[in-house]
Amino acid sequence: MMGSMVEKAIGRSLEALKNRDLLMAEEVVRDDDIIDDKQYEIEEKCIDLIATQQPMAVDLRTLVTVMHLAGELERMGDYAEGIAKISLMMGDEPPLKPLIDIPRMATMASDMLRRSLDAFVNRDVVSSMVVRNDDDEIDALYEQVYRELLTFMLGDPTVIRRATYLLWAAHNIERIADRTTNIAENVIYMVTGERIDVVASPTS
Amino acid sequence: MMGSMVEKAIGRSLEALKNRDLLMAEEVVRDDDIIDDKQYEIEEKCIDLIATQQPMAVDLRTLVTVMHLAGELERMGDYAEGIAKISLMMGDEPPLKPLIDIPRMATMASDMLRRSLDAFVNRDVVSSMVVRNDDDEIDALYEQVYRELLTFMLGDPTVIRRATYLLWAAHNIERIADRTTNIAENVIYMVTGERIDVVASPTS
Repeated sequence: MMGSMVEKAIGRSLEALKNRDLLMAEEVVRDDDIIDDKQYEIEEKCIDLIATQQPMAVDLRTLVTVMHLAGELERMGDYAEGIAKISLMMGDEPPLKPLIDIPRMATMASDMLRRSLDAFVNRDVVSSMVVRNDDDEIDALYEQVYRELLTFMLGDPTVIRRATYLLWAAHNIERIADRTTNIAENVIYMVTGERIDVVASPTS
Repeated sequence: MMGSMVEKAIGRSLEALKNRDLLMAEEVVRDDDIIDDKQYEIEEKCIDLIATQQPMAVDLRTLVTVMHLAGELERMGDYAEGIAKISLMMGDEPPLKPLIDIPRMATMASDMLRRSLDAFVNRDVVSSMVVRNDDDEIDALYEQVYRELLTFMLGDPTVIRRATYLLWAAHNIERIADRTTNIAENVIYMVTGERIDVVASPTS
């Protein structure tokens, strides 16, 4: 449920950005509080179970994983909120260019999110590995968006500020995708008990 | 101990950036694994205590807070690693300008980190509130750095790429400071049992 709340926040933050829909952006910002509350609720339930049921090995790893997942989802919600706030900062400025790659990045990130949560539900290590590798594709697309926006800025310095808005939006999506790989790594830990190192980006 | 490891990582990542010291930057990247391991170690100890000692109310909140703190510190370590990676990407390119405000931001963030951890040790709600308010100052300085770098880009489009490197570095420091306010909020929760809402920035 928390996963679908976050997925919805990502979708709506992008829709708001694309259609310059400030009302929708405000809704995303407001609804983020509900996501935050959900995290605390999940965490409290897990801690309560750990404290009262004294779970062993694999059950304990599952509860710890659930807490991590709730934390990752909460932060993804923050990134979606961030994208909504970028829309609000842009106000009614005309879009710099039609948005194509940024929504594509967002679709990919949402897809990774869904698959990482499915992998969690199914305790599926193989799918988790696939999600983890897919992140390279988003990173490549991000690099492409970054270069394109730099070219825009070089070509017309008056668009620099508007270009940096889109740069932040793309950055936030890249971070969302990165956090789905954290979920995937947590699922691998839950099932196998092995920690895989999380690789940090320069702007993690 | 984990706090001082992170503080050292922040200091060294900035020194590497300022002095274009690629060896030191590589060290920061490498040492981040030790910080990551420390987080897992702390988390495991906390979970073990929760599972076996069945702590009540305030003790349980303390253990939950310790886990959160370890998570926040781990992520600050990632931001320091990110700054080190920016140095590595810059390679031996000449600096765009003498770095003044960015190191100042870093010094303020380190100071906030130290005070937030002191507040944790002393269970000090008032100091936690102060740390939380100090974040506004870093945000203002970040805004100033941002504007200055935009001006550089406007004045000379050939420096745009180099300016965006510094933009990312400043961004990472802003994020570090933001996470010290998360620590402060966790301390307030630990002592009072009250959650204060974490406010997300557009690029959290």
